[in-house]
Formats: sequence, structure tokens, C-alpha cells
Amino acid sequence: MADVRIRGERLVADLEALAKVGDTGDGGNCRLALTDEDAGGRELVVGWMRDLGLDVRVDRIGNVVATRAGREPDLDPVMTGSHVDTVRTGGRYDGTLGVLAGLEVVRALDDAGLRTRRPLAVAFFTDEEGSRFAPDMLGSLVYVGGMPLEDALDVVGVDGAVLGDELERIGWAGDAAVPGPAPHAYVELHIEQGPVLEEQGVTIGAVTGVQGISWQELTVAGQSNHAGTTPMRLRHDAGWVAASVVTFVRDVAYELGGHQVGTVGRLDLHPDLVNVVAARATLTVDLRNTDDADLAEAERRLRDHVAALADGEGVEVGWRQLARFEPVTFDPAVVDLVERTAAGHGHTVLRLPSGAGHDAQMFARVCPTGMVFVPSRGGVSHNPAEYTHPAELAAGAQVLADVLVELAEGELA
Amino acid sequence: MADVRIRGERLVADLEALAKVGDTGDGGNCRLALTDEDAGGRELVVGWMRDLGLDVRVDRIGNVVATRAGREPDLDPVMTGSHVDTVRTGGRYDGTLGVLAGLEVVRALDDAGLRTRRPLAVAFFTDEEGSRFAPDMLGSLVYVGGMPLEDALDVVGVDGAVLGDELERIGWAGDAAVPGPAPHAYVELHIEQGPVLEEQGVTIGAVTGVQGISWQELTVAGQSNHAGTTPMRLRHDAGWVAASVVTFVRDVAYELGGHQVGTVGRLDLHPDLVNVVAARATLTVDLRNTDDADLAEAERRLRDHVAALADGEGVEVGWRQLARFEPVTFDPAVVDLVERTAAGHGHTVLRLPSGAGHDAQMFARVCPTGMVFVPSRGGVSHNPAEYTHPAELAAGAQVLADVLVELAEGELA
Repeated sequence: MADVRIRGERLVADLEALAKVGDTGDGGNCRLALTDEDAGGRELVVGWMRDLGLDVRVDRIGNVVATRAGREPDLDPVMTGSHVDTVRTGGRYDGTLGVLAGLEVVRALDDAGLRTRRPLAVAFFTDEEGSRFAPDMLGSLVYVGGMPLEDALDVVGVDGAVLGDELERIGWAGDAAVPGPAPHAYVELHIEQGPVLEEQGVTIGAVTGVQGISWQELTVAGQSNHAGTTPMRLRHDAGWVAASVVTFVRDVAYELGGHQVGTVGRLDLHPDLVNVVAARATLTVDLRNTDDADLAEAERRLRDHVAALADGEGVEVGWRQLARFEPVTFDPAVVDLVERTAAGHGHTVLRLPSGAGHDAQMFARVCPTGMVFVPSRGGVSHNPAEYTHPAELAAGAQVLADVLVELAEGELA
Repeated sequence: MADVRIRGERLVADLEALAKVGDTGDGGNCRLALTDEDAGGRELVVGWMRDLGLDVRVDRIGNVVATRAGREPDLDPVMTGSHVDTVRTGGRYDGTLGVLAGLEVVRALDDAGLRTRRPLAVAFFTDEEGSRFAPDMLGSLVYVGGMPLEDALDVVGVDGAVLGDELERIGWAGDAAVPGPAPHAYVELHIEQGPVLEEQGVTIGAVTGVQGISWQELTVAGQSNHAGTTPMRLRHDAGWVAASVVTFVRDVAYELGGHQVGTVGRLDLHPDLVNVVAARATLTVDLRNTDDADLAEAERRLRDHVAALADGEGVEVGWRQLARFEPVTFDPAVVDLVERTAAGHGHTVLRLPSGAGHDAQMFARVCPTGMVFVPSRGGVSHNPAEYTHPAELAAGAQVLADVLVELAEGELA
């Protein structure tokens, strides 16, 4: 079979062209889902899809699937893709890389004069970021049947807009049915959005799955007291309890080890005065693990520890679960294929889980799925400073191309 | 010598009458310094002073000193007093008790037909609370020569008003010189504003001094990172460092023991999002001790610990000293006299330091000084719920009366 050769300069040119839509002037992009800027990004990318002769279909939630016919056109396609919407202060690579690399794979196949056995589909999904309309990964969730279309269309955004109205307004409510047909396999190229690959000097990540997520909000009700006149032993200090939770969250992450992480990113005290023992504290705990039993163990230890803290300090703690997602495990054969392909190109490669959510995790419900990561400089993402070196972009796209061709030609998965 | 008998019902009636001025409708009072409400309180109290035949003088910062002549009128007076201004959401007893109990002592002396050897002065001082014009205890500070009059008159309030202008506007800029004459001794009755007396079931506190105060603001600069994709060991988490400071502050208070207290009442994270490792944290540390060397030791341990934390986590910490006051030690003979007098009345009595600031601490610079505390229910103060039982108010006033008479008659102090 002829070599399928990715040309990095074409991919970079497409990324630069798309980054002009919703350009925030500081190197970043703002194409919040279903805004005029999102529509502008969609039009540009679909124009390229049509230029490549792909069969473009838009479904009723606005997902776009562009298919290149295979030698056996009735077989289920191998699919790749991601998203073109961004957060409010987004970068140029999150999502867009996966979509535009898919188009570059099509170009490289055209260059090589190669028609794969199975069709190849390049897709982008509506509202992956969830910044305007919750939940995130909404489009791919609807595609795989995880959310009824009607519920999705009724979602009200942070700006009060209704998703279905906005989808109509920007002209991207298509007629393809949802849930959509399950592909033969799904593989997504994405920037890591974390620091691990860069820190370890590795070019390609073979993503093993997506961490499970537990978000909880704790409200600590203690007693406001004078910081000078109240002896330590007579305090019911909501702030001290909250702080003790923060240090425990880190302790439990280290105790459990592995891929367990834990973060307290939000913490507010009341009345928040220098000389008053805090009466109330509100904090969030973000726990993630690739192993659901370990994640549940972290939650259990947290709950036990907080109960003991509350008892000792004489405060009340209220709990609210903000989110809970089970971990996703990608198909071992696809993960192996990604790893083997990257190594075959002479790249350093590391198996690692994704700490962030991706459209791929939705497809893991319906077909063999995997992901390819490339490094994020400084681990920075959702930020205009988001950056991946062109050589790494090209390396990732080449691995994606070879993996897609292997899946489209062979029996794997 | 005839018994000087306090009549609690008269004291309570005066407290109730004064509480009608600036009544907040929820049991509390708002007579911020040099407002119309403060003026109303001043007029009521000075009316009572004149009714009792006292010689009322108002000084150039608005302090009021009402003197009852002694048998030897040229001797320095024994002084008592406190303040009639309140915080914005003040109670009925903070400050007012000390002033009105002084007037009740005068009445009891009149009832007993007793003229003390030294004159007896009942005073109230301008802007003790400092809620409108900083610093607190401003009037007594000016009285003892700790702040030039001109500086005090130029103070700009939180509402933009100039202290001197407001003093003129409400008609309480008097002509008595400041600094004022040092009294022979100064004793102040006040509510504890803390929980210790109630918790120990004690009626009278013999106050040994006022804690020194160290207020510092720490600003922690770390790095914002994705809570899912950033391994624990690669974090520079400003929130975790801040929380570790909070728990250390409590640890150091227990390690040093004695009267050391430590509080983090204010803590703010940025960006304060559930899934983002905090880039910045700002927190305050309030350390207090009756012993200045111990307070300095607490500060030193805090600084060392924070330096180690910052080094380990790879964050920068900026320090700003917000306040630093040395501890005040009251005259041992006066403290003994308070304790002995209380015990002589059959009251339980406890020596304890004040965790809050009082006008008495200014007089400790210029004459033998002491204080009498009565319990605060639940330790609550600066709050409409502030409460002290009438029997405890009367007990405190009786101890004050006997101490003042002893000081005015004898050679002590």
C-alpha cells in the first residue's frame, strides 16, 4: 500500500485560517457554541469538506459528518473528528486539531491515490465545550443516544438563549437523524491539555481512557467569633475545616497514587474579615481517577475525614454532588495500534489517561475507540497561550492517518 | 465608710434609654462615630452627667470628661469610662456599660452621702470603634498624646467624610486641651466580648492586659492549571499553600499555648473555579498574644513555615503587614484590687487578658490602669444579639464602684 504522507504545512495553514474566525486579538479564539462565530467556523470547515469532495451530512443537533467513500461503501466508516467550538478564552488547537487533521488525512489519501476499504468519516460535534450550553460534549452525547434530541434542544444557555433556537438561527439544524449510525471505530487526535507529555519529553500519547470525575460542593456552617477574644479550643471555625479539607484532598490523592488527582479550586469564606472567625465556608472538591473503584474509595475517605473534622470542630457540613462521571476505558486494540504506529515512526510514546473530557469518550459507548495526544506547551489549554509545535501537530496527524488507514483496511476492532 | 450600693435597675434603665438612640430595630444599635446618632447618644449621656451635677468638659477631639469633686479637689481624679459610639451592627452593652456604670457609681456615692478623697471622673472617648474613622480608640489615643490632634482631625472616614468636619458639624468639638491631664488611675468596666467567662461559669474578669496584635496579608502566586490533566507533583497550587497556612496557624497557636491565638478569617482564590488549580490566593493571618516575645515567635515560625511551603510547591508569597500592636500589661496592683474586690463580694473571678482593644489600654501608658469584665452570652459582640444578664451588669458595676472608691480614698496606685 502507498504511503499516506501528512503535509504539516497544510494542516498549520488550515489551523491558522480557522483561528481567524472569532480571533480574540491575543492569539486566542472565541467561538462559543451556536454563536455567529461558531457558525463562521462551521462554514469555513464545511467549505473545505466540500472542496475535498466529501459527502457532508448535518444532523438535527448540528453535528457534521463528512464521509469519503470506501472500496466497500456499505461498510460502516472509520470515523475521526472533534469539535470547532471553543471556550470564551480558547486557544487555536483544542478541538480544531482533530477536525482539521482529519481533513489533512483525506488530502494525504487523495495525494496517495488511495481508497480505503471502509469509508472514512471526518466529523465535528456541536457544543463540545459546554461553556455556553451544559453539559459539555452535548453533540456527541446526542449522536450516541445518550441524551434525547428534545432535551438537548431545550437546553438554556448561560446567556438565557435556548439551544434549539440558536441552532435554527445560525442555520445549522440539519435533517440527519440522531442517534447517528455507530461507526466501525472512532479515533480522535487532540492536544493533551496537560503537562505530562512535555514534561517527559514524549511526542505522542496513546490515550488509555478518560478519568472518571466526581465534583462535590461542601458548605461548612460554623460560628462567627472574635479572632482576639475566642480561645482556640472554643472555636467552630468553618474556615479551618475548609482548609483542612483542602490539605486532605491532596493527601488522599498521594495516598491512593496512580492516576488519582484531587483539587479544591473554589473556596469562599463568610464574612471574610481579617479579625472574625469564619461562620461559613463553601468549597468544591474535584476528584478524578481512571479507576472507578479507586475514585469511589477517594470519595469515601473524603466523606469519613470530613465527618470526623466536623465532629471535632462542632460544625455542620452540607454536601451537594455537582457532577459524577464514571471513567471511560478505550479499546485496548486501538490503544495498542496507536502506540505501535507512533513507535513505528520513531516517536517517543506514552500511554496515559485523559484528564479532560472528549467526544471520543461518547463513541467508546458504541464502537472501538481511541485517541492520539500531542503535547501542550506548559500544559496550558483553554487559554490564548495554548500551543503545540508544528512538528508535533504533524507527527500526531501522521499517527492518526496511519491508524485510520489500518482500521479502514484491516479487521482490527 | 458607708457602703456604696449600686442599684442595677437604674443602670439597666439607662442602658435601655441609650439603646433607643440609633436603634436598629433588631435589638441592636448603630451610632457610628460622629454621625447624628452618635451626637444623639452624647446629648443623652451628657444630660445625665449634668443632672448629677458633674463638671462636664469636652476636649478638642470630642472626648467628654465629667468630674465629681473630691475632698481634696486638687488631687488628680480617679477616672472611669469607655465609649458610646458603636459599630454599624452594634449591641447595647459594648462601651455604653462602662460609661453608664460610671454614672451609676456617682449616683451610689450620692445615695451614700460619700465624697471621695480624690475626684472621680466619668469619661467617654470619641471613635473607639474605628468603624467609620481609623484607627480605633482614636479619642483615647489623642487624650494620652499618642496621636497629634491635627492628624486626628484630618482622618478621612470610610464614607469620605473628614473627622474634624464631622466633629464640628455635630457640635462636639470642645475647647479642652489635648493631650488631657493624666488621671491618678483608670479603671474601665466592659463586657468580655468573648466566651471565656460564660464557659467557665465565672461572673467577674480581672483583666490582666490587652493582647498584642499582628495582622499580615499573604498573597500566594502559583500557576493556574487544569484540575484533571495536571498530575499532583506538577502543581503550583496557590490554594493548597493558602490552606496549609490556615492549618499551620492553628497548629502554631496550640504549640505556643498560653494566650496565643491565630485566625485566618479572609481567604480568596483566583480564578475560584471548581476545575482549575488556583493561580492566586490572598489570605490574612491574625496572631495575638499577651506576651510580645511569644507573639514574635509565632510570627517567626509562620514566616519560616510559609517559606518552606512556597519552596516545596514552587509558588511566590508576598507579605504585607496590616497592623502590629504590642501587648499592654495592666497595673498588677489594680488587677489584684479588682480580683480581691470581686472575691470579697462572693463572686467567682478569673484573671484573663482582653483579646479586643479598649480605651483602657491607652491610659495604661500614663497611669495605673485596670479593667473589669462581665460575661458576654455566647461570646457574641458587635452584633444585635450581644447580651449580659442584668445581675452580671450590676455585679460588674458594684466591683467597679468599690475599686474606684478604694483608689480614690487610699494610696494604692
